[in-house]
Amino acid sequence: MQVLVVLAHPDDASFNHAIARTVCETLDANNHDVVFLDLYKEGFDPVLPAPELSRDAILDPVIERHCKILSDADGIVIVHPNWWGMPPAILAGWIDRVFRPGRAYRFVEGDKGEGVPEGLLRARVAIVLNTSNTEESRELEVFGDPLERIWKNCVCDLCGIPRFQRKMFRVIVTSTYEQRIDWLNETRGIISAFFPAG
Amino acid sequence: MQVLVVLAHPDDASFNHAIARTVCETLDANNHDVVFLDLYKEGFDPVLPAPELSRDAILDPVIERHCKILSDADGIVIVHPNWWGMPPAILAGWIDRVFRPGRAYRFVEGDKGEGVPEGLLRARVAIVLNTSNTEESRELEVFGDPLERIWKNCVCDLCGIPRFQRKMFRVIVTSTYEQRIDWLNETRGIISAFFPAG
Repeated sequence: MQVLVVLAHPDDASFNHAIARTVCETLDANNHDVVFLDLYKEGFDPVLPAPELSRDAILDPVIERHCKILSDADGIVIVHPNWWGMPPAILAGWIDRVFRPGRAYRFVEGDKGEGVPEGLLRARVAIVLNTSNTEESRELEVFGDPLERIWKNCVCDLCGIPRFQRKMFRVIVTSTYEQRIDWLNETRGIISAFFPAG
Repeated sequence: MQVLVVLAHPDDASFNHAIARTVCETLDANNHDVVFLDLYKEGFDPVLPAPELSRDAILDPVIERHCKILSDADGIVIVHPNWWGMPPAILAGWIDRVFRPGRAYRFVEGDKGEGVPEGLLRARVAIVLNTSNTEESRELEVFGDPLERIWKNCVCDLCGIPRFQRKMFRVIVTSTYEQRIDWLNETRGIISAFFPAG
Protein backbone atom coordinates (compact mmCIF):
# COMPACT_ATOMS: atom_id res chain seq x y z
CA MET A 1 0.00 0.00 0.00
CA GLN A 2 1.00 3.61 -0.46
CA VAL A 3 1.11 5.26 2.97
CA LEU A 4 1.41 8.99 3.54
CA VAL A 5 3.24 9.98 6.74
CA VAL A 6 2.92 13.63 7.80
CA LEU A 7 5.06 15.16 10.57
CA ALA A 8 4.63 18.60 12.16
CA HIS A 9 7.23 19.51 14.78
CA PRO A 10 9.89 22.24 14.60
CA ASP A 11 12.65 20.40 16.49
CA ASP A 12 14.59 17.66 14.65
CA ALA A 13 15.59 16.21 18.02
CA SER A 14 11.99 15.92 19.24
CA PHE A 15 10.24 12.70 20.23
CA ASN A 16 7.77 13.45 17.42
CA HIS A 17 10.63 13.04 14.95
CA ALA A 18 11.57 9.74 16.61
CA ILE A 19 7.97 8.56 16.26
CA ALA A 20 7.82 9.56 12.59
CA ARG A 21 11.13 7.79 11.86
CA THR A 22 9.83 4.66 13.59
CA VAL A 23 6.60 4.82 11.54
CA CYS A 24 8.50 5.13 8.26
CA GLU A 25 10.96 2.33 9.16
CA THR A 26 8.13 0.00 10.17
CA LEU A 27 6.15 0.68 7.00
CA ASP A 28 9.30 0.14 4.93
CA ALA A 29 10.09 -3.12 6.73
CA ASN A 30 6.53 -4.24 5.98
CA ASN A 31 7.08 -3.52 2.25
CA HIS A 32 4.76 -0.55 1.92
CA ASP A 33 5.50 2.50 -0.22
CA VAL A 34 6.08 5.46 2.09
CA VAL A 35 5.58 9.11 1.16
CA PHE A 36 6.99 11.19 4.02
CA LEU A 37 6.07 14.86 4.43
CA ASP A 38 8.05 16.72 7.11
CA LEU A 39 6.08 19.97 6.90
CA TYR A 40 8.70 22.04 8.78
CA LYS A 41 11.53 20.68 6.63
CA GLU A 42 9.48 21.44 3.49
CA GLY A 43 8.87 24.99 4.70
CA PHE A 44 5.16 24.43 4.00
CA ASP A 45 3.20 27.72 3.97
CA PRO A 46 0.01 27.09 6.00
CA VAL A 47 -1.69 30.42 5.28
CA LEU A 48 -4.57 29.88 2.85
CA PRO A 49 -4.72 32.91 0.53
CA ALA A 50 -8.02 34.47 -0.60
CA PRO A 51 -7.95 33.07 -4.19
CA GLU A 52 -7.87 29.51 -2.79
CA LEU A 53 -11.28 30.05 -1.18
CA SER A 54 -12.82 29.46 -4.61
CA ARG A 55 -13.65 25.83 -5.36
CA ASP A 56 -12.32 26.34 -8.89
CA ALA A 57 -9.06 28.02 -7.83
CA ILE A 58 -5.96 27.52 -9.94
CA LEU A 59 -3.66 25.91 -7.39
CA ASP A 60 -0.08 26.70 -6.53
CA PRO A 61 2.03 23.73 -7.80
CA VAL A 62 3.06 22.93 -4.22
CA ILE A 63 -0.58 22.62 -3.14
CA GLU A 64 -1.42 20.65 -6.28
CA ARG A 65 1.39 18.22 -5.43
CA HIS A 66 0.16 17.83 -1.84
CA CYS A 67 -3.44 17.29 -3.03
CA LYS A 68 -2.26 14.53 -5.36
CA ILE A 69 -0.15 12.85 -2.65
CA LEU A 70 -3.17 12.93 -0.32
CA SER A 71 -5.54 11.57 -2.97
CA ASP A 72 -3.14 8.75 -3.92
CA ALA A 73 -2.63 7.49 -0.36
CA ASP A 74 -4.13 4.15 0.67
CA GLY A 75 -3.39 5.00 4.30
CA ILE A 76 -2.38 8.09 6.27
CA VAL A 77 -0.29 8.46 9.43
CA ILE A 78 -0.14 11.89 11.14
CA VAL A 79 2.42 12.73 13.86
CA HIS A 80 2.22 15.94 15.89
CA PRO A 81 2.23 17.42 19.40
CA ASN A 82 -0.95 18.71 21.06
CA TRP A 83 -0.70 22.51 21.05
CA TRP A 84 -3.74 24.20 22.60
CA GLY A 85 -5.99 21.29 21.63
CA MET A 86 -4.95 21.70 18.00
CA PRO A 87 -2.19 20.56 15.68
CA PRO A 88 0.66 23.07 15.21
CA ALA A 89 -0.41 25.81 12.77
CA ILE A 90 1.75 24.39 9.96
CA LEU A 91 -0.41 21.23 10.05
CA ALA A 92 -3.72 23.06 10.65
CA GLY A 93 -2.96 25.01 7.47
CA TRP A 94 -1.98 21.87 5.60
CA ILE A 95 -5.55 20.72 6.21
CA ASP A 96 -6.94 24.17 5.29
CA ARG A 97 -5.11 24.19 1.94
CA VAL A 98 -4.83 20.52 0.91
CA PHE A 99 -8.18 18.99 2.00
CA ARG A 100 -10.00 20.79 -0.79
CA PRO A 101 -13.57 20.50 -2.06
CA GLY A 102 -13.57 18.34 -5.16
CA ARG A 103 -10.42 16.54 -4.00
CA ALA A 104 -10.92 15.39 -0.40
CA TYR A 105 -14.71 15.78 -0.27
CA ARG A 106 -17.58 17.15 -2.36
CA PHE A 107 -21.05 18.47 -1.87
CA VAL A 108 -23.87 16.68 -3.65
CA GLU A 109 -25.25 18.15 -6.85
CA GLY A 110 -27.52 21.15 -6.30
CA ASP A 111 -26.30 21.72 -2.76
CA LYS A 112 -25.14 25.25 -2.03
CA GLY A 113 -22.42 24.26 0.43
CA GLU A 114 -24.39 23.95 3.66
CA GLY A 115 -25.26 20.30 3.18
CA VAL A 116 -23.66 17.02 4.06
CA PRO A 117 -20.47 16.41 2.13
CA GLU A 118 -19.36 13.14 0.63
CA GLY A 119 -15.81 11.90 1.29
CA LEU A 120 -13.54 11.42 -1.70
CA LEU A 121 -10.28 10.12 -0.25
CA ARG A 122 -9.21 6.61 -1.20
CA ALA A 123 -7.39 6.07 2.12
CA ARG A 124 -9.09 3.33 4.16
CA VAL A 125 -7.30 4.04 7.42
CA ALA A 126 -5.89 7.08 9.25
CA ILE A 127 -3.66 6.86 12.31
CA VAL A 128 -2.93 9.95 14.41
CA LEU A 129 0.01 9.78 16.83
CA ASN A 130 0.17 12.66 19.32
CA THR A 131 2.39 13.79 22.15
CA SER A 132 1.21 15.75 25.15
CA ASN A 133 2.37 17.13 28.49
CA THR A 134 -1.11 16.85 30.01
CA GLU A 135 -2.27 13.86 32.07
CA GLU A 136 -5.11 11.85 30.48
CA SER A 137 -7.68 12.60 33.20
CA ARG A 138 -7.03 16.35 32.94
CA GLU A 139 -7.14 16.24 29.13
CA LEU A 140 -10.55 14.55 29.15
CA GLU A 141 -12.14 16.37 32.09
CA VAL A 142 -10.72 19.88 31.77
CA PHE A 143 -9.95 20.27 28.07
CA GLY A 144 -12.39 17.76 26.51
CA ASP A 145 -9.74 16.47 24.06
CA PRO A 146 -10.71 18.57 21.01
CA LEU A 147 -8.05 16.81 18.90
CA GLU A 148 -10.14 13.63 18.88
CA ARG A 149 -13.10 15.50 17.38
CA ILE A 150 -10.96 17.46 14.93
CA TRP A 151 -9.22 14.44 13.45
CA LYS A 152 -11.91 11.78 13.72
CA ASN A 153 -15.14 13.70 13.17
CA CYS A 154 -14.19 16.87 11.32
CA VAL A 155 -11.45 15.54 9.02
CA CYS A 156 -11.41 11.75 8.60
CA ASP A 157 -15.13 10.95 8.77
CA LEU A 158 -15.95 13.89 6.52
CA CYS A 159 -13.40 12.84 3.89
CA GLY A 160 -14.59 9.22 3.87
CA ILE A 161 -11.82 7.43 5.75
CA PRO A 162 -13.63 4.54 7.50
CA ARG A 163 -10.98 3.34 9.99
CA PHE A 164 -9.49 5.75 12.50
CA GLN A 165 -7.00 5.13 15.29
CA ARG A 166 -5.44 7.70 17.57
CA LYS A 167 -2.78 7.26 20.23
CA MET A 168 -1.61 9.97 22.61
CA PHE A 169 1.82 9.50 24.16
CA ARG A 170 1.99 11.30 27.50
CA VAL A 171 3.49 12.88 29.62
CA ILE A 172 6.50 13.63 27.40
CA VAL A 173 8.28 16.25 29.51
CA THR A 174 8.72 13.92 32.51
CA SER A 175 9.19 10.66 30.58
CA THR A 176 12.29 8.48 30.95
CA TYR A 177 14.46 7.08 28.17
CA GLU A 178 13.03 3.62 28.85
CA GLN A 179 9.46 4.94 28.61
CA ARG A 180 10.21 6.46 25.24
CA ILE A 181 11.73 3.21 23.97
CA ASP A 182 8.53 1.47 25.05
CA TRP A 183 6.45 4.08 23.21
CA LEU A 184 8.43 3.56 20.01
CA ASN A 185 7.85 -0.18 20.33
CA GLU A 186 4.14 0.53 20.81
CA THR A 187 4.28 2.69 17.66
CA ARG A 188 5.75 -0.27 15.71
CA GLY A 189 2.91 -2.45 16.99
CA ILE A 190 0.18 0.01 15.97
CA ILE A 191 1.66 0.52 12.50
CA SER A 192 2.12 -3.21 11.88
CA ALA A 193 -1.42 -3.93 13.06
CA PHE A 194 -2.91 -1.56 10.48
CA PHE A 195 -0.27 -1.97 7.78
CA PRO A 196 1.00 -5.56 8.11
CA ALA A 197 3.79 -7.02 5.99
CA GLY A 198 2.30 -7.82 2.60
CA MET B 1 -10.95 49.63 28.72
CA GLN B 2 -8.32 48.50 26.25
CA VAL B 3 -9.87 45.87 23.98
CA LEU B 4 -7.91 43.70 21.57
CA VAL B 5 -9.81 42.66 18.44
CA VAL B 6 -8.23 39.88 16.35
CA LEU B 7 -9.48 38.97 12.87
CA ALA B 8 -8.43 35.96 10.79
CA HIS B 9 -9.98 35.76 7.33
CA PRO B 10 -8.24 36.06 3.94
CA ASP B 11 -11.04 37.87 2.07
CA ASP B 12 -11.53 41.62 2.72
CA ALA B 13 -15.10 41.30 1.43
CA SER B 14 -15.99 38.51 3.86
CA PHE B 15 -18.71 38.64 6.49
CA ASN B 16 -15.95 38.08 9.05
CA HIS B 17 -14.51 41.46 8.05
CA ALA B 18 -17.96 43.04 8.43
CA ILE B 19 -18.25 41.54 11.92
CA ALA B 20 -14.79 42.80 12.91
CA ARG B 21 -15.58 46.31 11.61
CA THR B 22 -18.84 46.29 13.58
CA VAL B 23 -16.99 45.19 16.72
CA CYS B 24 -14.41 47.98 16.38
CA GLU B 25 -17.06 50.63 15.63
CA THR B 26 -19.16 49.57 18.62
CA LEU B 27 -16.18 49.58 20.98
CA ASP B 28 -15.15 52.98 19.67
CA ALA B 29 -18.67 54.38 20.09
CA ASN B 30 -18.61 53.08 23.67
CA ASN B 31 -15.34 54.98 24.30
CA HIS B 32 -13.03 52.00 24.64
CA ASP B 33 -9.48 51.91 23.31
CA VAL B 34 -9.36 49.44 20.43
CA VAL B 35 -6.27 47.58 19.26
CA PHE B 36 -7.18 45.84 16.01
CA LEU B 37 -5.05 43.01 14.60
CA ASP B 38 -6.01 41.86 11.11
CA LEU B 39 -3.64 38.88 10.98
CA TYR B 40 -3.88 38.45 7.20
CA LYS B 41 -3.28 42.15 6.59
CA GLU B 42 -0.29 42.05 8.95
CA GLY B 43 1.12 39.04 7.10
CA PHE B 44 1.52 37.32 10.46
CA ASP B 45 3.78 34.26 10.25
CA PRO B 46 2.02 31.49 12.22
CA VAL B 47 4.83 28.91 12.05
CA LEU B 48 6.49 28.63 15.47
CA PRO B 49 10.23 28.05 14.88
CA ALA B 50 12.28 25.64 17.03
CA PRO B 51 14.10 28.32 19.08
CA GLU B 52 10.73 29.63 20.33
CA LEU B 53 10.06 26.29 22.03
CA SER B 54 12.39 27.42 24.84
CA ARG B 55 10.68 29.29 27.65
CA ASP B 56 13.60 31.72 27.71
CA ALA B 57 13.68 32.33 23.96
CA ILE B 58 14.78 35.73 22.67
CA LEU B 59 11.67 36.76 20.80
CA ASP B 60 11.29 38.19 17.32
CA PRO B 61 10.21 41.87 17.76
CA VAL B 62 6.91 41.10 16.01
CA ILE B 63 6.11 38.37 18.52
CA GLU B 64 7.28 40.55 21.42
CA ARG B 65 4.89 43.27 20.22
CA HIS B 66 1.98 40.82 19.98
CA CYS B 67 2.76 39.41 23.44
CA LYS B 68 2.66 42.92 24.90
CA ILE B 69 -0.60 43.79 23.13
CA LEU B 70 -2.14 40.57 24.48
CA SER B 71 -0.86 41.20 28.02
CA ASP B 72 -2.11 44.80 28.05
CA ALA B 73 -5.66 43.96 26.93
CA ASP B 74 -8.53 44.30 29.43
CA GLY B 75 -10.78 42.41 27.02
CA ILE B 76 -10.33 40.32 23.87
CA VAL B 77 -12.62 39.80 20.87
CA ILE B 78 -11.71 37.12 18.31
CA VAL B 79 -13.39 36.88 14.88
CA HIS B 80 -12.83 33.92 12.55
CA PRO B 81 -14.55 31.26 10.44
CA ASN B 82 -14.79 27.63 11.53
CA TRP B 83 -12.34 25.69 9.37
CA TRP B 84 -12.25 21.96 10.18
CA GLY B 85 -13.26 22.63 13.79
CA MET B 86 -10.29 24.98 14.19
CA PRO B 87 -9.42 28.61 13.59
CA PRO B 88 -7.62 29.33 10.29
CA ALA B 89 -3.93 28.38 10.60
CA ILE B 90 -2.84 32.02 10.80
CA LEU B 91 -4.82 32.34 14.05
CA ALA B 92 -3.90 28.88 15.37
CA GLY B 93 -0.27 29.94 15.00
CA TRP B 94 -0.93 33.30 16.63
CA ILE B 95 -1.93 31.29 19.70
CA ASP B 96 1.09 28.97 19.31
CA ARG B 97 3.54 31.89 19.19
CA VAL B 98 1.94 34.65 21.31
CA PHE B 99 0.32 32.78 24.24
CA ARG B 100 3.72 32.05 25.74
CA PRO B 101 4.71 30.57 29.09
CA GLY B 102 5.67 33.38 31.44
CA ARG B 103 3.43 35.79 29.53
CA ALA B 104 -0.02 34.24 29.12
CA TYR B 105 0.36 31.48 31.75
CA ARG B 106 3.00 29.98 34.02
CA PHE B 107 3.71 26.74 35.78
CA VAL B 108 4.08 26.83 39.53
CA GLU B 109 7.57 26.79 41.04
CA GLY B 110 9.22 23.36 40.99
CA ASP B 111 6.81 22.01 38.42
CA LYS B 112 8.47 20.42 35.38
CA GLY B 113 5.79 21.43 32.92
CA GLU B 114 3.27 18.63 33.31
CA GLY B 115 1.29 20.35 36.07
CA VAL B 116 -1.59 22.73 36.24
CA PRO B 117 -0.72 26.16 34.87
CA GLU B 118 -1.75 29.49 36.32
CA GLY B 119 -3.28 32.11 34.01
CA LEU B 120 -1.43 35.43 33.68
CA LEU B 121 -3.60 37.48 31.32
CA ARG B 122 -5.20 40.62 32.72
CA ALA B 123 -8.19 40.36 30.34
CA ARG B 124 -11.40 39.71 32.29
CA VAL B 125 -13.52 38.77 29.29
CA ALA B 126 -13.04 37.05 25.93
CA ILE B 127 -15.63 37.01 23.16
CA VAL B 128 -15.28 34.68 20.19
CA LEU B 129 -17.41 35.39 17.10
CA ASN B 130 -17.44 32.61 14.51
CA THR B 131 -19.00 31.95 11.15
CA SER B 132 -19.94 28.52 9.87
CA ASN B 133 -21.65 26.76 6.98
CA THR B 134 -22.79 23.87 9.17
CA GLU B 135 -26.21 23.69 10.82
CA GLU B 136 -26.12 23.78 14.64
CA SER B 137 -27.55 20.28 15.15
CA ARG B 138 -24.98 18.77 12.79
CA GLU B 139 -22.14 20.75 14.42
CA LEU B 140 -23.05 19.47 17.86
CA GLU B 141 -24.01 15.90 16.98
CA VAL B 142 -21.59 15.04 14.20
CA PHE B 143 -18.56 17.25 14.86
CA GLY B 144 -18.85 17.87 18.62
CA ASP B 145 -17.99 21.59 18.22
CA PRO B 146 -14.26 21.40 19.04
CA LEU B 147 -13.95 25.22 18.75
CA GLU B 148 -15.86 25.63 22.01
CA ARG B 149 -13.34 23.48 23.87
CA ILE B 150 -10.34 25.03 22.16
CA TRP B 151 -11.27 28.63 22.99
CA LYS B 152 -13.03 28.20 26.32
CA ASN B 153 -11.18 25.33 27.99
CA CYS B 154 -7.78 25.17 26.32
CA VAL B 155 -7.05 28.88 25.83
CA CYS B 156 -9.19 31.23 27.93
CA ASP B 157 -9.62 29.16 31.11
CA LEU B 158 -5.95 28.19 31.07
CA CYS B 159 -4.78 31.79 30.70
CA GLY B 160 -7.03 33.05 33.50
CA ILE B 161 -9.80 34.85 31.59
CA PRO B 162 -12.89 34.37 33.81
CA ARG B 163 -15.70 35.44 31.45
CA PHE B 164 -16.15 33.75 28.09
CA GLN B 165 -18.82 34.24 25.46
CA ARG B 166 -18.99 32.64 22.04
CA LYS B 167 -21.46 33.20 19.23
CA MET B 168 -21.58 31.22 16.00
CA PHE B 169 -23.28 32.90 13.05
CA ARG B 170 -24.65 30.25 10.69
CA VAL B 171 -25.32 29.25 7.91
CA ILE B 172 -23.34 31.95 6.09
CA VAL B 173 -23.35 30.54 2.56
CA THR B 174 -27.15 30.54 2.27
CA SER B 175 -27.83 33.68 4.37
CA THR B 176 -29.72 36.68 3.00
CA TYR B 177 -28.64 40.32 3.17
CA GLU B 178 -31.31 40.95 5.81
CA GLN B 179 -30.06 38.04 7.91
CA ARG B 180 -26.54 39.46 7.85
CA ILE B 181 -27.77 42.89 8.88
CA ASP B 182 -29.54 41.22 11.82
CA TRP B 183 -26.33 39.39 12.73
CA LEU B 184 -24.35 42.64 12.72
CA ASN B 185 -26.98 44.17 15.02
CA GLU B 186 -26.64 41.13 17.26
CA THR B 187 -22.88 41.68 17.23
CA ARG B 188 -23.39 45.26 18.41
CA GLY B 189 -25.59 43.98 21.24
CA ILE B 190 -23.07 41.39 22.41
CA ILE B 191 -20.19 43.87 22.36
CA SER B 192 -22.16 46.56 24.19
CA ALA B 193 -23.31 44.05 26.82
CA PHE B 194 -19.74 43.12 27.71
CA PHE B 195 -18.10 46.49 26.96
CA PRO B 196 -20.75 49.11 27.75
CA ALA B 197 -20.26 52.82 27.22
CA GLY B 198 -18.12 54.06 30.08
